[in-house]
Amino acid sequence: MSVTNRQIILRRRPRGLLDPADTETITSAAPPIADGEALLRVTYIGLDAAVRTWLNDQPGYLPPVALGEVIRSAGIGEVVESRCGVYKVGDIVTTLTGFQEYALIRDDVFSTLISGETDQVAIMSIYGSSGSTAYFGMTDIGRPRPGETVVVSAAAGATGSIAGQIAKIAGARVIGIAGGPQKCGVVVEEFGFDACIDYKNEDLSAALKSHCPKGVNVYFDNVGGPILDAVLGRLAPRARVALCGVISSYLTGDHPGPSNYVNLLARSASMQGFNALDMWDRFDEAYAALRWWEHEGALRHRETIFSGLDSCVDALNGLFTGANIGKMLVRLN
Amino acid sequence: MSVTNRQIILRRRPRGLLDPADTETITSAAPPIADGEALLRVTYIGLDAAVRTWLNDQPGYLPPVALGEVIRSAGIGEVVESRCGVYKVGDIVTTLTGFQEYALIRDDVFSTLISGETDQVAIMSIYGSSGSTAYFGMTDIGRPRPGETVVVSAAAGATGSIAGQIAKIAGARVIGIAGGPQKCGVVVEEFGFDACIDYKNEDLSAALKSHCPKGVNVYFDNVGGPILDAVLGRLAPRARVALCGVISSYLTGDHPGPSNYVNLLARSASMQGFNALDMWDRFDEAYAALRWWEHEGALRHRETIFSGLDSCVDALNGLFTGANIGKMLVRLN
Repeated sequence: MSVTNRQIILRRRPRGLLDPADTETITSAAPPIADGEALLRVTYIGLDAAVRTWLNDQPGYLPPVALGEVIRSAGIGEVVESRCGVYKVGDIVTTLTGFQEYALIRDDVFSTLISGETDQVAIMSIYGSSGSTAYFGMTDIGRPRPGETVVVSAAAGATGSIAGQIAKIAGARVIGIAGGPQKCGVVVEEFGFDACIDYKNEDLSAALKSHCPKGVNVYFDNVGGPILDAVLGRLAPRARVALCGVISSYLTGDHPGPSNYVNLLARSASMQGFNALDMWDRFDEAYAALRWWEHEGALRHRETIFSGLDSCVDALNGLFTGANIGKMLVRLN
Repeated sequence: MSVTNRQIILRRRPRGLLDPADTETITSAAPPIADGEALLRVTYIGLDAAVRTWLNDQPGYLPPVALGEVIRSAGIGEVVESRCGVYKVGDIVTTLTGFQEYALIRDDVFSTLISGETDQVAIMSIYGSSGSTAYFGMTDIGRPRPGETVVVSAAAGATGSIAGQIAKIAGARVIGIAGGPQKCGVVVEEFGFDACIDYKNEDLSAALKSHCPKGVNVYFDNVGGPILDAVLGRLAPRARVALCGVISSYLTGDHPGPSNYVNLLARSASMQGFNALDMWDRFDEAYAALRWWEHEGALRHRETIFSGLDSCVDALNGLFTGANIGKMLVRLN
């Protein structure tokens, strides 16, 4: 089987937003598959802020994307050719597809054969890394109890929107933080948060004080920077801070330290970083809970879907400019 | 019974070190005791960095010392008069004596009748707040495992020296951080740490890299500031940081945020503040363990003892200028 593959490769390391000139789109025949491999026709590419971090020349939980390599990202697709016993033609598989139309896969930790659920958008959104990240961060680290006050930043985003809904299910009061009235409206009306602070148009510290008069019991942090610092300034005794992301500084690589970290001491509070990949062996638990809550109508998800491989750069940058509500995806083919 | 009491009261709020002119020493008759009260002749006053924080006009886990009030501190003494059923003359009691020669006590959460142990210095040191703080911070938050690498700052101090020894008992490699060759020598030779970094004379980051090639699994932080930031930069995966104190900024009230907090995220690590007062109901557990370890010869404690009420200001300031090895005490009478 011979197919033409379009790929977006990294040409030079970006500064700030990814410049299209940092990339190059190349077209070539997809390589022949070897024993143990299969060829996936990619249908959706999933964007996470982490994709941008992989473009910096810094070690992380995965190595940086090398110059000349396809830009790494999550994705989903259909097996079109297989020499691997695990996958047969027609199977739906999620993997690290990268920014390309066809991806080689093998039976490894990054590739998951999907059975049952056929809604590929949902698989890439609530049932993918965003949902499980929200689940583990909120249930393992946040541990909200009924009546507690939970704050979630990037509340209109893929992870924040689900994290907040999980806290609502646990019986907490949930306050979102998002940028602009449209997102704040969606956070309250669609995702059911009790309130949402528009950090672009409100005094954040004053709003936190007003919405969290007894302090913040749980903070699910997607952003870092001044927002993290402001919430640390409002912690309640024995508060739990789940560090999920630092989107405010992924572009610059500069992470101003939150001076209010001393409130962790004054409030006997904790701040814990996590990565859903660490909980790989518990994905079934997250999946089951998320499925059930959605089945019950307690959990909603949304996506912002761009179209065509050429929109990948815009879609990635959109995570940093606030272009998305819910999960950011690119649909191919 | 009529006794003359000398007291050091707060006259104005200090900036930086406590200036003797910020205080006033007054002499008056000790007040008559009421029903439910007893009079304690203070024998030792215990100094903690927290004493200095109580002099700032900032809310904390205890209210600030008001102008005109006796400066609050821990202490121990002997009951010389009692109208309280719990205490009889001759009893030894630890309480928040403050900087004074006689203190009124009652049966409350801050006052503990001592039975058995008669070494008042040990009670104020290893068996007091310093020992229990080290115990809870290391066993509950640090949780070192055999072979792990533990770093302790202010390692020659009352809490740090015990925290590090507890980690040694748990089978960890323990690296201290202290100021100056004399303290570093004591930390290794007397307290049995595997090594001690002299932050005043060594490149801290380079020394951490050399002593902790696989990263830091547990950090017991007494100091905050640049030392905290440097250790956060060396965290191992799933590291635990116990925030015990921020002595580097108690004088200024200024807490620069540690920009390496993002390593909590990259390493799925946690940072937790705590206060031994929160574990009040578990003090018996800490006491039993500390007693046994000392009995076995696995735990040593040291004290730096100043003499006379008039040395209280110097003793308090000495915590910030590095004057003490082990617990800082003032002996009265």
